[in-house]
Amino acid sequence: MNQPRIEPRTLKGFRDFLPEAMIPRERIIDTARRVFRSYGFAPIDTPALEYLDVLLGKGSDETDRQLYRFQDHGGRDVGMRFDLTVPLARFAAQHIGELGTPFKRYHIAAVWRGENTQRGRYREFMQCDFDTIGTSSVVADIETALVIHDLLVAIGFSRFTMRLNNRKILTGLLEKLELADRAVAVLRILDKLGKIGPVKVGDELVAAGASDQQAADVLALATLSGDNDHVIAQLGPMLRGSAIGEQGLSELQQVAAGAKAGGVPDERLQLDVSIARGLDYYTGTVYETLLDELPGIGSICSGGRYDNLAQLFTKQELPGVGASLGLDRLLAAMEELSLIEKVHTPAEVFLAYFDEQRLHDYLALAARLRSAGINVELHCEARRLGQQLKYADRRGFRVALIAGENEWAENRCQVKDLASGATRDASLANDAAEVIAAVREILATDSG
Amino acid sequence: MNQPRIEPRTLKGFRDFLPEAMIPRERIIDTARRVFRSYGFAPIDTPALEYLDVLLGKGSDETDRQLYRFQDHGGRDVGMRFDLTVPLARFAAQHIGELGTPFKRYHIAAVWRGENTQRGRYREFMQCDFDTIGTSSVVADIETALVIHDLLVAIGFSRFTMRLNNRKILTGLLEKLELADRAVAVLRILDKLGKIGPVKVGDELVAAGASDQQAADVLALATLSGDNDHVIAQLGPMLRGSAIGEQGLSELQQVAAGAKAGGVPDERLQLDVSIARGLDYYTGTVYETLLDELPGIGSICSGGRYDNLAQLFTKQELPGVGASLGLDRLLAAMEELSLIEKVHTPAEVFLAYFDEQRLHDYLALAARLRSAGINVELHCEARRLGQQLKYADRRGFRVALIAGENEWAENRCQVKDLASGATRDASLANDAAEVIAAVREILATDSG
Repeated sequence: MNQPRIEPRTLKGFRDFLPEAMIPRERIIDTARRVFRSYGFAPIDTPALEYLDVLLGKGSDETDRQLYRFQDHGGRDVGMRFDLTVPLARFAAQHIGELGTPFKRYHIAAVWRGENTQRGRYREFMQCDFDTIGTSSVVADIETALVIHDLLVAIGFSRFTMRLNNRKILTGLLEKLELADRAVAVLRILDKLGKIGPVKVGDELVAAGASDQQAADVLALATLSGDNDHVIAQLGPMLRGSAIGEQGLSELQQVAAGAKAGGVPDERLQLDVSIARGLDYYTGTVYETLLDELPGIGSICSGGRYDNLAQLFTKQELPGVGASLGLDRLLAAMEELSLIEKVHTPAEVFLAYFDEQRLHDYLALAARLRSAGINVELHCEARRLGQQLKYADRRGFRVALIAGENEWAENRCQVKDLASGATRDASLANDAAEVIAAVREILATDSG
Repeated sequence: MNQPRIEPRTLKGFRDFLPEAMIPRERIIDTARRVFRSYGFAPIDTPALEYLDVLLGKGSDETDRQLYRFQDHGGRDVGMRFDLTVPLARFAAQHIGELGTPFKRYHIAAVWRGENTQRGRYREFMQCDFDTIGTSSVVADIETALVIHDLLVAIGFSRFTMRLNNRKILTGLLEKLELADRAVAVLRILDKLGKIGPVKVGDELVAAGASDQQAADVLALATLSGDNDHVIAQLGPMLRGSAIGEQGLSELQQVAAGAKAGGVPDERLQLDVSIARGLDYYTGTVYETLLDELPGIGSICSGGRYDNLAQLFTKQELPGVGASLGLDRLLAAMEELSLIEKVHTPAEVFLAYFDEQRLHDYLALAARLRSAGINVELHCEARRLGQQLKYADRRGFRVALIAGENEWAENRCQVKDLASGATRDASLANDAAEVIAAVREILATDSG
């Protein structure tokens, strides 16, 4: 075939992941799976393509516009999923009879949106969601907080803050202030608190029809700060008399106390009634997670409780609670905090190869190390040692094993710590026990 | 929103994976990753969508027809990847300067083809590929065989046969017989050997222009059988005088001997010069893997060596070798051989919850078990014990922990083996050490 050559390139907003980028991604995904599983969340998967009517009108006008949609070979209108929540709703409506409730699932998969890439957004990105559906129990809310906490710790963070709110608290206050019919407008205005400050928010609330006193009361609640006990003590009188407000406060207290009982240290938990995240979608507990060293990057794990997941697909009511880990944002943060080791190989040990007569010995030694649980790459071309060590260094191996004619004759090999350059001899006798011990010793030292 | 309800359904040829199906899929993918990494193969990922000209004309006419293609929001012609080989070729052409050679990568991802579902095919399926590119060294061919072997063993198979061939052997014979210009026709005919038998294949070879003697010589090679030493002894004289044929035989011997040195037992390795798989694509070693108990299901891991991966994208020559694990076929085989445990939860331990006053104690106990590495689901609703145990049983938990008012008062809990029904008491003292030991003991017994 003498086709003209095609320029190798990717579409705008789409990314190739080279090993250096993919190794930490896989590590975080593995960690997330391990934490989800430790709480009994089970994996599911759904198709990348759905019937268009399953997806359309389920997000916002924006997600409708950004949808990758087309006609398939059978003339069906189809679209690529833009999140994992709509597929979960469809999935739950279809299978909940078989699955039973409560149903705890995680789903880690790519989603697609024809975003404006000038905003630094990607058109293909990974979502990493977990949800408990079919239950209104506050235990599920508590567990959601515990999973978020354990996840961040397992990934390697120690300085982070989980912020909790409950949608019912603001609802209760607005009800008490007889502003319930303006809830949406009030929420939109409150959402700007961080940007424009309390004075301008107060002005906008008044412009939206609130009295000066109502605006002041709303602001008093939204700007509550201090430690958790203080916040709760302040909220009590503010919400007194509103059944829904008091219920929200009680739930918030239960989630905070339960999270503490389950192992979340006080300093990582912050009650914050100003969180406006998804307040038009969530109906109870709301979660945000900020890195103390990089608060500006935004929440890296967020979620909340909702009343009815699948109402557009089934009449069965499915309340639930869950959260989503922002993988790209998390990785950007880890990069900025130098928490990512730059390696291009998942193997720790490099086995140089230069005595071709001894190929079978190299193969047997590599097999021996692997059966001891050590990842080892045997260089596949017999080249000069210096050239091979340069390759090993560039790839980020931790240890090089070197055996040439002399070493094989004496049944030993050299074990080289590629970070320090230190080299020692180790015997190959007894199934290379000495080599394995020397490798383990180097791997046990900090690579940093 | 009073939208009419939408029927929850998936597109034909697309699948939802419920936990029962997804848990073994994840387990196999995890196992494959672990084996790939143990040889130094590094993960990569590429976009689901590519420019149409990257995909079109790279497979067969059939893959072109089956391509999911459309215009994106920017009016670009795009398509969904139909395999992981074409994206690898594009990726390698684009990044090989930065990656360096040899480059060893694995890629586990979904691909899409608008297949005729009446043939039992899926339109979305997972591919699980590994390749070593940028080297012609036979060491890479040997390692490919070792990875296939270790992979099947790690997944849990013991009775399987890896069949090896080398494309150059048939090329050499055809050259020697002066049939090289009819190679494609001869290959197509030989491919029918299993279906129509040697007599009809002989007739067809003659009809395609071979003399009776030529047809007999081709058939003698293609029907060679017996143990590996015998096959090699027979091939020697057949190929004598053909440089390429002798090279193929030498490579085949080196791969077989190297695989043995790397730990593949003799009985799992079979030289088979009749394998016609991809003989129009592969240029050297060819691999197939059959399950001894289910040979009819076909090869579950196949691959081979190719001369030039990315010739349509770059002038740089990139020889390589690799193979692909057929995940769907493998899972179907495991199902048929009852190698898949039917569970709906990744957690082993179920913690019943019925004393609401003690919620914090349940949460702390669950946290204690998790920090000992035990996956535990706390039931999120306080229901009657019988109902909860039914839930635990249906989900496939191995152990239930039961603590009510009395147990909490006495600082102990019941540990129930859900398979045998046996229940014992264990103390919660010393960070629940006795409970953890009891759980570990049950988990160590065979679940079957």
